[in-house]
Amino acid sequence: MRDPKTIAAKLFEGDRLALSRSISWAEDADPRFPKTLACIWERVGKARRLGVTGPPGAGKSTLVNELARHLREADRTVGILAIDPSSPFSGGALLGDRIRMEDRTKDSGVFIRSMASRESHGGLARASVDACDVMDAFGFDEILVETVGVGQAEYDIVGAADTVLVVLCPGAGDGIQAMKAGLLEVADILVVNKSDLPGADRLQTDLEEATHTRDIRRDGWEVPVVGVSAAKDEGLDKLLGAVDDHRAHLERVGLEAVRRQKRAQQVKRVVGERLDEELWGDGGLGGRVDSALNAGSTAYDIAELLLQDVLGGKLMAQTRDSKTEAAH
Amino acid sequence: MRDPKTIAAKLFEGDRLALSRSISWAEDADPRFPKTLACIWERVGKARRLGVTGPPGAGKSTLVNELARHLREADRTVGILAIDPSSPFSGGALLGDRIRMEDRTKDSGVFIRSMASRESHGGLARASVDACDVMDAFGFDEILVETVGVGQAEYDIVGAADTVLVVLCPGAGDGIQAMKAGLLEVADILVVNKSDLPGADRLQTDLEEATHTRDIRRDGWEVPVVGVSAAKDEGLDKLLGAVDDHRAHLERVGLEAVRRQKRAQQVKRVVGERLDEELWGDGGLGGRVDSALNAGSTAYDIAELLLQDVLGGKLMAQTRDSKTEAAH
Repeated sequence: MRDPKTIAAKLFEGDRLALSRSISWAEDADPRFPKTLACIWERVGKARRLGVTGPPGAGKSTLVNELARHLREADRTVGILAIDPSSPFSGGALLGDRIRMEDRTKDSGVFIRSMASRESHGGLARASVDACDVMDAFGFDEILVETVGVGQAEYDIVGAADTVLVVLCPGAGDGIQAMKAGLLEVADILVVNKSDLPGADRLQTDLEEATHTRDIRRDGWEVPVVGVSAAKDEGLDKLLGAVDDHRAHLERVGLEAVRRQKRAQQVKRVVGERLDEELWGDGGLGGRVDSALNAGSTAYDIAELLLQDVLGGKLMAQTRDSKTEAAH
Repeated sequence: MRDPKTIAAKLFEGDRLALSRSISWAEDADPRFPKTLACIWERVGKARRLGVTGPPGAGKSTLVNELARHLREADRTVGILAIDPSSPFSGGALLGDRIRMEDRTKDSGVFIRSMASRESHGGLARASVDACDVMDAFGFDEILVETVGVGQAEYDIVGAADTVLVVLCPGAGDGIQAMKAGLLEVADILVVNKSDLPGADRLQTDLEEATHTRDIRRDGWEVPVVGVSAAKDEGLDKLLGAVDDHRAHLERVGLEAVRRQKRAQQVKRVVGERLDEELWGDGGLGGRVDSALNAGSTAYDIAELLLQDVLGGKLMAQTRDSKTEAAH
């Protein structure tokens, strides 16, 4: 089971080893992955994709586990992708809990995978979309992608999902900080977790005001603020109701167009990675950079020379043409 | 004062407005910046560059302030660049304190600048190196770059400095977490801050063991672990002594070669940003991605087609040639 066609066939048969292996190929940027994806591409697009992010300690892992449990009770199969952004100071996923959960249920309707990368945040976003595509083609009804919200790189990961939940919990200034950090901008649904704690009502009110004051609606969607207590299993049905509402909204405004826009981001990521290989891999431009630096040029002057050479004036001419066309 | 030549001349006269403006141009990727840099390039390279990173709450800001004070007492001029990685959950710089410090001292030998970016971490690393180059050409003896250590993107920023301090403080498992996060790999000097708190000795011992066990020495440099209490002004001289030692080590093994290697990273960042503009700006490839997606291709297939077209087979042929040469 080492070639793309066999992996694809096995995947369609429900083979979990094939599922794991193809995700590993995506993670490792193995050249067999693109071929595998091409073989399974026709079956990609059925799953609902839910991104979950928020600051460390907001209770994302617990929430994701509870969401998975509720979805299973509703007879939906669930694939979970837990992204560890390589920093221990940002929280990290409680994989131990996850593994215990999987063992306990022995539920073939749940699949859990974690993904970590020290290499490149760009590569991680690309690989996480790939992993979701594989889980989607495998046949899971629901895909949950969880990442701690510490910066743009993480928003990029969850932003590839259809619906993004931003999870906050009461604590020192978290509401204000979330606004400052652009967490509100990435949210389709705001979740106030640990809603039984002091300060939860205040946080909920603050967030509701913020969503009204700042115009963060997209295509007419008003971001709801939903209070839950994941640990106590309170409010989950309401939250899943909001997810259903958002999905219905997307279908109204055109789910396919929204997805195509997100898919275009994935093309950019792949192009970026491939260019990196071509330009900076063995036999690339590294040697020429060294000699130009020795000659005392600035990074900008060197970059300009290399680009003119690599692109051979081709793209720039193309760009000029289309700009001229646009002007007419 | 709106053209690169005037800015460069003013910069050499010690004009702080020119200093600020050229850093803003770097931050905004203004086309005037590369020209400005070319005008001042001959004076870049004299300053000592010190990167400071570590988890939120380790006391980086206090340490940087105290380092600046000690350096000023030794009659060194100091430029400080505080990077806010746009996330409130990762700590953020106490700019208020910094501004008060600057006001209080009214010291023309200190310059403080903060930089934030929601856009792209890649762009932030590029701009922070640019800002250091400008401060260097302006004439500061010492440049301190501070960023919270939450991931690879932040290491990239401080990694451009000559000497990197990783600041930790006693707390639940921070030593082990630092090892897991790759913070040790980026450190030239490990700093145990708040060394008067319980657990500091243990952390120091753990780190010393780790640096001995794991071979993280580069070119024969043994990473020292230095205990300080920045808030109580204890151990700062010892720390600055370790910085001097590292600098002497760099000069022994070849400071220029080390810097050239780091400068090559900056060329990559500039090439990456410029390619982004060319490929995805107005008149770029966006439209073609849309039609290919509509036709049902995967991101990988689309990327491959675009690359073949953009690079026109040129680079790939070049790559093959140089590989063939290398084989002979």
